[in-house]
Amino acid sequence: MKKKAAIGIDIGGTNIVIGFADIDGNTLDKVSFKTASYEKVEDFIVKVSQEINNMVLDNNDMYQIIGVGIGAPNGNYYKGTIEFAPNLPWKGTIYLAELIESKVNMPVVLTNDANAAAIGEMVYGGAKNMKDFLVITLGTGLGSGFVANGELIYGHDGFAGELGHIIATDNGRECGCGRKGCLETYVSATGIKRTVFEFMSDYNYKSDLRDMSFHEVNSKIIYEKALEGDEVCIRAFDYTANVLGRKLADAVAITSPEAIFIFGGLAKAGGLIIDATKKYMEESLLAIFKNKIKVLPSALDENNAAILGAAALAFQNFKE
Amino acid sequence: MKKKAAIGIDIGGTNIVIGFADIDGNTLDKVSFKTASYEKVEDFIVKVSQEINNMVLDNNDMYQIIGVGIGAPNGNYYKGTIEFAPNLPWKGTIYLAELIESKVNMPVVLTNDANAAAIGEMVYGGAKNMKDFLVITLGTGLGSGFVANGELIYGHDGFAGELGHIIATDNGRECGCGRKGCLETYVSATGIKRTVFEFMSDYNYKSDLRDMSFHEVNSKIIYEKALEGDEVCIRAFDYTANVLGRKLADAVAITSPEAIFIFGGLAKAGGLIIDATKKYMEESLLAIFKNKIKVLPSALDENNAAILGAAALAFQNFKE
Repeated sequence: MKKKAAIGIDIGGTNIVIGFADIDGNTLDKVSFKTASYEKVEDFIVKVSQEINNMVLDNNDMYQIIGVGIGAPNGNYYKGTIEFAPNLPWKGTIYLAELIESKVNMPVVLTNDANAAAIGEMVYGGAKNMKDFLVITLGTGLGSGFVANGELIYGHDGFAGELGHIIATDNGRECGCGRKGCLETYVSATGIKRTVFEFMSDYNYKSDLRDMSFHEVNSKIIYEKALEGDEVCIRAFDYTANVLGRKLADAVAITSPEAIFIFGGLAKAGGLIIDATKKYMEESLLAIFKNKIKVLPSALDENNAAILGAAALAFQNFKE
Repeated sequence: MKKKAAIGIDIGGTNIVIGFADIDGNTLDKVSFKTASYEKVEDFIVKVSQEINNMVLDNNDMYQIIGVGIGAPNGNYYKGTIEFAPNLPWKGTIYLAELIESKVNMPVVLTNDANAAAIGEMVYGGAKNMKDFLVITLGTGLGSGFVANGELIYGHDGFAGELGHIIATDNGRECGCGRKGCLETYVSATGIKRTVFEFMSDYNYKSDLRDMSFHEVNSKIIYEKALEGDEVCIRAFDYTANVLGRKLADAVAITSPEAIFIFGGLAKAGGLIIDATKKYMEESLLAIFKNKIKVLPSALDENNAAILGAAALAFQNFKE
């Protein structure tokens, strides 16, 4: 019998990656291209369908390919749409699953990128035997995927899991969503940068970052400087973990997960973010939840995680 | 064939009610007694088992009685326990389902009272055809039951759904849980009373409540005075709805429910609480959730709702 495999697609603001993954979580082929090269969604559909059909031709002999899974910003699981994604060139509502399905001879399923990450963690990663957990993705923004009773919470409209848009501070920082004080304006690669610039105003600590512009600074530099002992950067990490820890305590009160997985660039800061978040979360938890909820880095290899999440979505939806 | 029925038990800080309900939601028999009369849990077990066995004897000819469901504060679904319930006379962890099961000849299932309310709403009430909704119970405290994908979210440990203990205000009002600023210190019968006393300090409005002690005032009086035009009481309702509406917007971002049902004494204040909460929630919602989430009073008759919720739990767990 042929081994089962699926095609996973990760649509990001910068890159689009298409990968071929088997049911054991091995990523076999992978192609990637720039999102900005496909300003018209029609051109993107042609390109992505070609790549899918090529992968099918290349692997059809060896594998039973069950379908295509897609993780995309503002992706809607029920409708297979991408809706009003601010960081993609395609405006309005795009019926992406349907459009691709019409060009390739197999089923296509789509969800938002953080939900795909949660399914990837459940199928291939650290949540294999868990029925209740959540995944936080820290990138430009903060994404989340909640799993309860072994199933992803899509909500009645397919848009559940927007933990990045709960309010961390009333009348706080301006958010891209048009409101103020959303969690992701504090906790994300962008959020920690904003904190660094706030702290350069609040404190008089020397910092190499005082010689850099807002556009030059990024979370990787903040991490490196923190390791070198830069007090502004150390405090920015501590503050980020504090805000995240307190808001995770609220999320725990709602869904009581066994574990919280943290994924993305910032998660690589390890103790500075994971351990500190856990500490602040514990301080804020209701007594019945104390000392029993794990905060862990994602167990998926970051290079393939998005592809594996998307492929896992296909495996979950197309069992046969 | 005999009609199916279940026994529902509602354990509260003041009263314990045992009811016999058929599968269509008719409450047939009902007995109630004071919680304080049973300081020792052993005595309570004897009493409740007698009542159950009597109901079985009385109805066995006509009905197929499938089991017993219990709604209780701090109830744990997985373990059948009541754990450290501050308003009950029995301290520590009580294995209530097991204790009762050993005295009656049928299965017993238990969950917390707000979860039972959510299951009651799903089986008998306004959520009959919904897969994603939440129920808020406003009593002495604020309870909640979240349903996603048609299943109640119990969480990994059976304690999920503690929306009353998400933080509404950092370093806010002292909560019975030992922390500060929990939602239920603002939004509950007790919460609105605290707000009235805060507002009597903050404002100079005349108010009949200035002649009453803290212990004399209750949410029913506040409601009646609000209807009479008492500005302190009107503002207290508005503030309560504002806090609840903003926090519901956060809850919506996580689970995206089709509807939010509000249950309990305060919910009877109708427009003053339901409509105002909806208004403030809409103001706070992320754009994708605006104008599509219903805020409704519970459709269950308040006198029998707790019994029906507990019976519905039994129907859900003991299908045969």
